Amino acid sequence: MRPIYLDNNATTRVDAEVLQAMLPFFADVFGNASSMHDAGATAGAAINVARRQLQALIGAKFDPEITFTSGGTESNNAAILSGLEAMPERTEIVTSAVEHPAVLTLCTHLEKTRGTKVHKVPVDHQGRLDLDAYQDALTHRVAIVSIMWANNETGTLFPVVKLAEMAKKVGAIFHTDAVQAVGKLPIDLKSTAIDMLSLSAHKFHGPKGVGALYIKRGVPFHALIKGGHQERDRRAGTENTPGIVGLGKAAELALDCMDKDNAIIRSFRDRLEKGLLERVPQVFVMGDPVTRLPNTTSIAFEGVGGEAMQFLLNRHGIACSSGTACTSRSLSTSHVLKAMGTPHRQAVGAVRFSLSGYNCEEDIDRVLQVIPAVVKKLRESRPVFAG
Amino acid sequence: MRPIYLDNNATTRVDAEVLQAMLPFFADVFGNASSMHDAGATAGAAINVARRQLQALIGAKFDPEITFTSGGTESNNAAILSGLEAMPERTEIVTSAVEHPAVLTLCTHLEKTRGTKVHKVPVDHQGRLDLDAYQDALTHRVAIVSIMWANNETGTLFPVVKLAEMAKKVGAIFHTDAVQAVGKLPIDLKSTAIDMLSLSAHKFHGPKGVGALYIKRGVPFHALIKGGHQERDRRAGTENTPGIVGLGKAAELALDCMDKDNAIIRSFRDRLEKGLLERVPQVFVMGDPVTRLPNTTSIAFEGVGGEAMQFLLNRHGIACSSGTACTSRSLSTSHVLKAMGTPHRQAVGAVRFSLSGYNCEEDIDRVLQVIPAVVKKLRESRPVFAG
Repeated sequence: MRPIYLDNNATTRVDAEVLQAMLPFFADVFGNASSMHDAGATAGAAINVARRQLQALIGAKFDPEITFTSGGTESNNAAILSGLEAMPERTEIVTSAVEHPAVLTLCTHLEKTRGTKVHKVPVDHQGRLDLDAYQDALTHRVAIVSIMWANNETGTLFPVVKLAEMAKKVGAIFHTDAVQAVGKLPIDLKSTAIDMLSLSAHKFHGPKGVGALYIKRGVPFHALIKGGHQERDRRAGTENTPGIVGLGKAAELALDCMDKDNAIIRSFRDRLEKGLLERVPQVFVMGDPVTRLPNTTSIAFEGVGGEAMQFLLNRHGIACSSGTACTSRSLSTSHVLKAMGTPHRQAVGAVRFSLSGYNCEEDIDRVLQVIPAVVKKLRESRPVFAG
Repeated sequence: MRPIYLDNNATTRVDAEVLQAMLPFFADVFGNASSMHDAGATAGAAINVARRQLQALIGAKFDPEITFTSGGTESNNAAILSGLEAMPERTEIVTSAVEHPAVLTLCTHLEKTRGTKVHKVPVDHQGRLDLDAYQDALTHRVAIVSIMWANNETGTLFPVVKLAEMAKKVGAIFHTDAVQAVGKLPIDLKSTAIDMLSLSAHKFHGPKGVGALYIKRGVPFHALIKGGHQERDRRAGTENTPGIVGLGKAAELALDCMDKDNAIIRSFRDRLEKGLLERVPQVFVMGDPVTRLPNTTSIAFEGVGGEAMQFLLNRHGIACSSGTACTSRSLSTSHVLKAMGTPHRQAVGAVRFSLSGYNCEEDIDRVLQVIPAVVKKLRESRPVFAG
């Protein structure tokens, strides 16, 4: 039985072309990109190509606005800490209640250890940001705003272009965790007031262990990881040439195929969602049904635990998520669903299905075939639904 | 003409077996290691195998003492910052004057921004640590000691096992940057007082972009990169499964082949060194001639600029270094050679040759054939040597 992978917001398959592009840089063009000899220069040139490929995907005005990192979490940490360091006279952060742990864990740490005031802007029951609360939080005490572009659990999009303009009015640095948006949505940073943006290669068919932080020209930046002069003193450590080359190739492919892929992915996602709503009683879709990623649907099943669903679907060869992968092992309630005011009882579980261009119609058909029976079985084991 | 790569302290070729081990984890076993489904669990299991392979190489008592990171620089930064955070009542750092920038740049930053007192223990003209100065710097005010195991430029080894015992007497945490030692020297951490150790895969034929920090059980640790619960809350961010698997395999190979490889590498290195001393007048070997890495020789040529040498050797297809790769682009004098009290005139240049198991006898023969003429040419262009 062919496994069905519907957990692409957790991570994606590396595209065959991406892997092919990376291969020469392991054992052939393996020089240190910062070395002066030919072995180094060839690696350095490949990194520059990758930088321009990524520049094109996110519409950066200048390619040195891109700093390669080890991934989205590092980028998020670097952006927020840099924002605070760049504006020592300001001591507040504005973020949302539904950010990824890569933002929220750091913010909580800063609250505890530095007394940083963190405004966590709430969302409504569809996961939409409370714009009034956001406006209220924006003062001249705010050093940095960090609001995600797309939510990893529900796919809900935040109006970051507008949010950045609002932040500019109080002189705050605006950062967006765009880990779930880059490669899935058209992005043109040069036409926005966004100062910093985090992204991760493995969310759009690039390799794990590599990402980037976009830093608009003129925005002050203080490196998180200090050492050698790599990345123009913005990120020390020997450049991960194969990873960076893979990120660049993944960016190129994402840009080339976005429209076509998204149309197909969206149609599969909608078919899955519609099919589940038709076939299973007492289910509802979480998040903003319109303004959201084309690949994501988060579906709550009344009377069913999310982890139990995930567990049984896994037995049927279907990989999905009952929260973010990063925290799913903890089996705790999703902070995102909690922030949305979703009825929080053990008896209501949400399952996230996140698709990619590697899914096919048969995947959706099999999921639609399997889930009704799985839900029925789980509900029957609970007295309140057993009747 | 086959290129000759003698810059293995900058980075190494990924071993073919390492790459083979990594390949399934890009497009086949690509799940997020923190996900609960089979695709994740399989990746997680591979990471655990890698952890045990690395455990064996460094002789750690328990495999959870290993935290995977993005490389040596991140590990060094994490260790030092954690040491300061773990002991807030102590405000001093002890390090050496010849550490890698991954340690020194951070220390300088801490001096400037936090007023941390940093003791940079000097070395003698052979690069050996001043043990009296080290003892003097050790007080109950020291939170963390960070001293490298092997110097990247000269290969000189520091007596870290003894240094760690001395640090323990004042209750300081002892960290060693062992990026150049791991994979080249036998290491058995469980029999030492070393609290933390940094290593990087790409220095011993593993991939770039992955490394580890050893943290002895019981030593307090505060994560540098905060977010999800990966690596038992010690390093957030989606696990770089292919990179970690590659690091594990490289560790296994290094352990298996160390004795045999080192004997050959050492004989080539000695042959190169002896040959140059015989063939070229006014040259001398930098660093401790006995207590050093088997693969490294740093040779000073009077009347010749290190960068000029490197440049001309590159034209002959020979890759070497005139300083550390991380800083060589800046064309500044090596801080290591400066700390050793080497006559610092533009007219004295040092070239580092660092070998690996991929070098062969013919490499050494060709270098010995090329260098005398290159040195002669460069010296003739300088009036003082032209006669």
